[in-house]
Amino acid sequence: MLVRTLSTLECTKLLTANRIGHLACARDGQPYIVPLYYAHADNHLYAFSILGRKIDWMRANPLVSVQVDEHGPGRGWKSAIVEGRYEELPDTVGHKVQRDHAWAMLSKHADWWEPGALKPDTFPVSDHLPHVFFRILIGQVSGREAVQS
Amino acid sequence: MLVRTLSTLECTKLLTANRIGHLACARDGQPYIVPLYYAHADNHLYAFSILGRKIDWMRANPLVSVQVDEHGPGRGWKSAIVEGRYEELPDTVGHKVQRDHAWAMLSKHADWWEPGALKPDTFPVSDHLPHVFFRILIGQVSGREAVQS
Repeated sequence: MLVRTLSTLECTKLLTANRIGHLACARDGQPYIVPLYYAHADNHLYAFSILGRKIDWMRANPLVSVQVDEHGPGRGWKSAIVEGRYEELPDTVGHKVQRDHAWAMLSKHADWWEPGALKPDTFPVSDHLPHVFFRILIGQVSGREAVQS
Repeated sequence: MLVRTLSTLECTKLLTANRIGHLACARDGQPYIVPLYYAHADNHLYAFSILGRKIDWMRANPLVSVQVDEHGPGRGWKSAIVEGRYEELPDTVGHKVQRDHAWAMLSKHADWWEPGALKPDTFPVSDHLPHVFFRILIGQVSGREAVQS
């Protein structure tokens, strides 16, 4: 296996081509990592979630990291790591355009809402659950690719 | 999809059955997330890496999070999240048993060393690279399962 650094453009393509990644946030030095369904557009990763630890922590400390990987062919892989900043898109005047954009991005995918929308022992997404739309502003992105030599 | 909480035993089984996960560490409030090849034994996740940002950060702040997921059947999934503590297994007297144990755990798998062992534009694992063996002491583990209803 030979490993090389991905260019920023290659990292961006990897982010655009995928919609499942992993998000890490941190509070008082303790990281917390969860799967993330997202849509990439305009230097942001758009996502949503119901209220919970992840949102609480990102509201307190907006610094996050998102990692996306892709496998194959063979044993090859690509990985991109984003350092970014949490930005909430609240349901208030002034954010309608951004929320509509997030919704348009995310609703292109049939099952985008599942992990973010579900809490244990409850039924699927309901209008009564308080959803938080947010986006991650991509600050830095770096990546690597391993190719079978 | 119906989502339920996994028991500690179910989380432990998920950790044992897999060997690829994602690790997050943090420095000065900035999380950093990378793929992790690990082996689970004795309430620890064993792994290794060459020197770099991940090791630097975990040496400075040993609080980490590891997440492991498993997909299928259908659109179902399981996910376990560990809150843990980084423990280095240095190559000094007193750690030989732990290092040998780590090696035994990890070397059961043919390609366990790949992402940890490679830096861009270098060739595969060499005795000349300074490898760091470490383990994550599992402090807390929690998990969820989504089942197609």
